[in-house]
Amino acid sequence: MDTFNRLTAALKRIGLLDSVSAVLGWDEQVNLPPSSASLRAQQNAAVAEVVHHAFTRPEIGEWITELESTELSADAACIVRESRREYDRAVKLPADFVRRKTEAASEGYHAWTEARKKSDFSAFSPMLQRQITLAHEEAGYLGCSENVYDYWIDRFDPGMSAGVFASLFDELRDPLRDLSEAVLTAPRKADISIFKGFPVDAQESFLREVLTRIGFDFNYGRLDVAVHPFCGGNGWDTRLTTRFAPDNPLDSLFSAIHEAGHGMYEQGLRIGNRKSFGLPLANSVGMGVHESQSRLWENQVARSEAFWAFYEPRYRDAFPTQLKGVSSADLRLAINAVQRQPIRVDADEVTYNLHVILRFQIERALFSGELDVAGVPAAWNELSKELLGLTPESFAMGCLQDVHWSEGFFGYFPSYSLGNVLAAQLWSAANTALPKLQDEIACGNFSSLLGWLQKNVHRHGKRFGTRELVRQATGEEISPAPLINYLRERYSVLYGV
Amino acid sequence: MDTFNRLTAALKRIGLLDSVSAVLGWDEQVNLPPSSASLRAQQNAAVAEVVHHAFTRPEIGEWITELESTELSADAACIVRESRREYDRAVKLPADFVRRKTEAASEGYHAWTEARKKSDFSAFSPMLQRQITLAHEEAGYLGCSENVYDYWIDRFDPGMSAGVFASLFDELRDPLRDLSEAVLTAPRKADISIFKGFPVDAQESFLREVLTRIGFDFNYGRLDVAVHPFCGGNGWDTRLTTRFAPDNPLDSLFSAIHEAGHGMYEQGLRIGNRKSFGLPLANSVGMGVHESQSRLWENQVARSEAFWAFYEPRYRDAFPTQLKGVSSADLRLAINAVQRQPIRVDADEVTYNLHVILRFQIERALFSGELDVAGVPAAWNELSKELLGLTPESFAMGCLQDVHWSEGFFGYFPSYSLGNVLAAQLWSAANTALPKLQDEIACGNFSSLLGWLQKNVHRHGKRFGTRELVRQATGEEISPAPLINYLRERYSVLYGV
Repeated sequence: MDTFNRLTAALKRIGLLDSVSAVLGWDEQVNLPPSSASLRAQQNAAVAEVVHHAFTRPEIGEWITELESTELSADAACIVRESRREYDRAVKLPADFVRRKTEAASEGYHAWTEARKKSDFSAFSPMLQRQITLAHEEAGYLGCSENVYDYWIDRFDPGMSAGVFASLFDELRDPLRDLSEAVLTAPRKADISIFKGFPVDAQESFLREVLTRIGFDFNYGRLDVAVHPFCGGNGWDTRLTTRFAPDNPLDSLFSAIHEAGHGMYEQGLRIGNRKSFGLPLANSVGMGVHESQSRLWENQVARSEAFWAFYEPRYRDAFPTQLKGVSSADLRLAINAVQRQPIRVDADEVTYNLHVILRFQIERALFSGELDVAGVPAAWNELSKELLGLTPESFAMGCLQDVHWSEGFFGYFPSYSLGNVLAAQLWSAANTALPKLQDEIACGNFSSLLGWLQKNVHRHGKRFGTRELVRQATGEEISPAPLINYLRERYSVLYGV
Repeated sequence: MDTFNRLTAALKRIGLLDSVSAVLGWDEQVNLPPSSASLRAQQNAAVAEVVHHAFTRPEIGEWITELESTELSADAACIVRESRREYDRAVKLPADFVRRKTEAASEGYHAWTEARKKSDFSAFSPMLQRQITLAHEEAGYLGCSENVYDYWIDRFDPGMSAGVFASLFDELRDPLRDLSEAVLTAPRKADISIFKGFPVDAQESFLREVLTRIGFDFNYGRLDVAVHPFCGGNGWDTRLTTRFAPDNPLDSLFSAIHEAGHGMYEQGLRIGNRKSFGLPLANSVGMGVHESQSRLWENQVARSEAFWAFYEPRYRDAFPTQLKGVSSADLRLAINAVQRQPIRVDADEVTYNLHVILRFQIERALFSGELDVAGVPAAWNELSKELLGLTPESFAMGCLQDVHWSEGFFGYFPSYSLGNVLAAQLWSAANTALPKLQDEIACGNFSSLLGWLQKNVHRHGKRFGTRELVRQATGEEISPAPLINYLRERYSVLYGV
């Protein structure tokens, strides 16, 4: 067996063990009995240790080094390049640091839940400081102590940086603020109180039909219930989750479609790379591209006029009494309700990115030293006023609302907006390439859209970075214009602004 | 850290990784999407390899050897003794043999399903021969080539042997045959056609109430649906399964109670040994004792007059229209129906052990060389006539009905009967120790029975072998008399014989 085969065999084995972790993670959210959490934590740690041990064997480093000076095919070069990135990260972080970081994540999460409950920022701020210090330390081990925030952004979206995001957000900020103000002050209002008493069974049947029709493959996946919806597993066994409430049917529907967007990306990675399980060829580019797939199906597709042209009669069949007397126009407005409210995860697609810009500005200032931890609440409330036009009632509704920082995730929020930007770019490109797409969707046919995404996004795996992938798929650089145009077009029609 | 602590730390880690395998196994039966089987097979193999590697490290052998010549507490000695047993097995089987055996199990299973479908023994016989040859080879590696069948029996029930089972079965054979003939020819007949159209939802609610009341702890466990009911996991996370059919409510009820009996044993192992996860102290003695717990709850308890004195009104409340016009006496008879039929897994408790004796006699003859593989069908049919009073219509209903041999499980069937024998002995001892037990059960109170089992069986883990455990719990040797007496008593009243 030559060196390259040795490396790929090791990566596939590590991928298998990693996928076992994913099964444990899914099961923990979906099935775990209440008192079994401590066993599960130990199981997770045992598997994580096995994976770490398998990946940090010195031979792997030697194989990578040998292959880096060998002439390789493009695919092989991709495997070696991505292995180097992950291997370095694995071996350069001292075991003691990894242990401290794991502890900090667990203790930080606990402190955050308590602090949020009491809306007490001072109970959380030492933990936030500790996470920032650890974030600097980690970047230092990887040789990035001069550009710590860039390191963290690149962790989630390889090739992206704070500077690229700053330009993107500079172009997005005013148009989004203007559009949201126009919609929020429009005389036409969405009435979401029409969604009352939708039986969960009927919600689930409707939803499963939608997921099957848009192209999620249940032969390689499932749908279950979890408190916080997520997509677990991989394209060989994709585990979607959603949640159901009789008075909030859109939450379960759009959560599930969102997660199915992630899931169809994973399944597309399999379809394009059937023999490459565990290799970078069958792994996603990064968080931004992943989020672009979930957002595109959730927003561009499933909130569109064409989608509801097909699904409105079916939705009325499923909920005849509940939707009696609700006009088509009111249904469309309720599906695309825009609200002035402080919580990111509840935000509509018009205001969502303003919530992200707020976080990006604070994170960037924290890492540049312009802002210290004590200054976060004031900075948050000021930016909230400026961007969202409101001041949160409490820290719990403001700077304590998100879990990310408590577990040491910095540089992750921008990926959400990158996902929205890319979704609009891909949507625009797909509509250009497929001139009949809107008619197809209005007939309940989603296969040419999914095929286009599989061909232009999914099958590439990690062969290209985010920016190159966008160039290949759309012929353009990453750009906020398609998102702005898409939002203006959809919401001006809906709200008459 | 001294040698003993090193050993227990290694065992706990191996136990954790083994329990991860158990999660994968449960998930495979309960959740796996149809096309994800190949991924799961690879995940299973990867974890099995990690476990094998972790257990066969030479240091572990050195630690065991060192501790074998050290003065130890009884618990520590138990840990060392059991580790030696498992370690020897793990290191003495060559990797190539393990691989061939795994392949044979997979190919044997496949050949068996096909052969059974066509009722074609000749399509299965080469696989059976291969498994017998492998069974001899394995026993040889472990130094047991002179007593291969004993080796296999001891694998599932440490300390038991073919000779011990032969004596037991010699005492059981005639009384069971006589009792079953008497019941089968009695004028009083059970009518199981009363079980029609029991809604699955109501079955499940009733069942969950029963499991909770008898003492299965849902804080540390779950109940799900699987094609073949089983109990997965361990006492820290116990995963029961059953299956539901509207026209067979007793199958789901008794399957679930049976599995809960296994589950409560596992949970009792935890309760008695909270800090010993992964150590022999918190592991079951063997298959026979495990089966005694499932059988005791399924048969001695849940088919009893006292149990139904409490549950009959509740069962009628759950299924009022279905049970209308069914008398209490007819309900009791249907719950304790005895039938002449060829399939072991469908057998009632009166005839069940005759099915096992048949298999034991064939296995023993196969391993002693008195019988060759080609002679199995004729031997089966002859024994079937002699023991059960019937000749199977086909090989599928006869010598091809069980999966065990196809996967190389020999010496496993006797454990089922050992379980029945032990269940009756423990039931008799518990009733002597707890004179009010029948009254308690008739009031729906099962806690003193469960407490007695936890104290006298569960908490001991592997500290004693099966025979010593029975001595300690009942003051007697393993004996068939309590089973014979219990069956005679119950069925003579029910059937008036």
